[in-house]
Amino acid sequence: MNYRLTLQYDGTDFHGWQVQNDLRTVQGELTRALSLIDGSSIVVHGAGRTDAGVHAEGQEANVHLRREIDPMRLRAAINGNVARDLRVIGAESVPDDFHARFSARGKTYCYRIFNSHFVSPFWLRFAHHERRELNVSAMQQIAPLFLGAHDWTAFSCARTDVSTRVRNLTQLEVTEQWSSRGKLIEITVSADGFLRYMVRSIAGTLLAVGRGQMDEHTVARAITGGDRTLIGPTAPPHGLTLMQVHYNAEIRG
Amino acid sequence: MNYRLTLQYDGTDFHGWQVQNDLRTVQGELTRALSLIDGSSIVVHGAGRTDAGVHAEGQEANVHLRREIDPMRLRAAINGNVARDLRVIGAESVPDDFHARFSARGKTYCYRIFNSHFVSPFWLRFAHHERRELNVSAMQQIAPLFLGAHDWTAFSCARTDVSTRVRNLTQLEVTEQWSSRGKLIEITVSADGFLRYMVRSIAGTLLAVGRGQMDEHTVARAITGGDRTLIGPTAPPHGLTLMQVHYNAEIRG
Repeated sequence: MNYRLTLQYDGTDFHGWQVQNDLRTVQGELTRALSLIDGSSIVVHGAGRTDAGVHAEGQEANVHLRREIDPMRLRAAINGNVARDLRVIGAESVPDDFHARFSARGKTYCYRIFNSHFVSPFWLRFAHHERRELNVSAMQQIAPLFLGAHDWTAFSCARTDVSTRVRNLTQLEVTEQWSSRGKLIEITVSADGFLRYMVRSIAGTLLAVGRGQMDEHTVARAITGGDRTLIGPTAPPHGLTLMQVHYNAEIRG
Repeated sequence: MNYRLTLQYDGTDFHGWQVQNDLRTVQGELTRALSLIDGSSIVVHGAGRTDAGVHAEGQEANVHLRREIDPMRLRAAINGNVARDLRVIGAESVPDDFHARFSARGKTYCYRIFNSHFVSPFWLRFAHHERRELNVSAMQQIAPLFLGAHDWTAFSCARTDVSTRVRNLTQLEVTEQWSSRGKLIEITVSADGFLRYMVRSIAGTLLAVGRGQMDEHTVARAITGGDRTLIGPTAPPHGLTLMQVHYNAEIRG
């Protein structure tokens, strides 16, 4: 039986998604809990291998189990066997050929920036702190340049082992909101797929624009020309959250 | 010189506001940092003595220092000497007779309830978790009963040492919002003052209403009759946040 799991985690105390010897990872925790439940050695497939420190409000995974188990009971059993910074928020039976990663049609990430002279205790773990006031309109104005299909080599890790580095960006929104906690800037990005460090490189470039360190012309050249020296530094991982993985409607439920 | 400080803190790792021997408290941390800065023993006056586990997005305090110091430098100096779960977000010079507690005209608190079958890792510290779906309309319908001036003895700690237990409630709103993280219910309460445990007792009573365990008639009797046996249990502290302390306009700035 194949089960789809929807997950949330606070990435602060995880060394990322992927199993690593002697390090606490999300995949490692799920594998341990599910092996106990199923009494067998299982493989958990994740939709995205989030890096150390990156959070998820809607990560997706799937796992084939020998036992047939009610999805609500499976959810409760996993949550009872992992720490509270990781939660299964949804579980369902899915067709055998559903694969969290290969069936995915796209993903949405959010990069959060807390923009104030102080670091709010409430955003400490979940947003990058930027002390200087950012020019949000400049960031918003430049955002459409990123849309569409491009080769994202310059915005990725050089060692990424993929057949093509072309990805189609379908959404890039920069919003700003004030609350009692202070000013929060959110960069929301959707694409059919992402290369490693891609969202954080886009966020780093938008940060450089917001600081007035980079202009539209340079950003356009970085995107179309693929020159790594032109893009902003990779923004730190704790500002990044995987929000949603998109599948075709028929796979859901 | 008298300085007003506006504070945020994550109350999780504090034993409340008030100085206690050998325990980490907000007042204790500020006193330590300010004594270092001023080179003297000082007294920090807080607007509200929040209990262990209670958070603040807008606590207020004042302190008289021997040294004259630029408020922005004072803010930076304190923030450099306390841990990151406590932040001075604003500082200003105020008239000598300003007192964070006695000058206050009222306060606003927010009690947060994360209402879902799972506890979101993102609300773990800052919201009470309620697994059963709450009837939010019933909570909203009953809210106006709390408004106005009442003797709040039944909603308070029996040992509270105050001359009167009458407080005037000027706002009680119950809102519900959905986000990618799940469903959050916020109870926002304003009054000219609060007795100890008062907000958490009101929240506990509204929780009982939301669960269908208490009706309008009983709540009305608890409020007007002051019968402690009729109110809901005190809601846990980590759901509570002090949002704002209200002063007369002329005291600000």
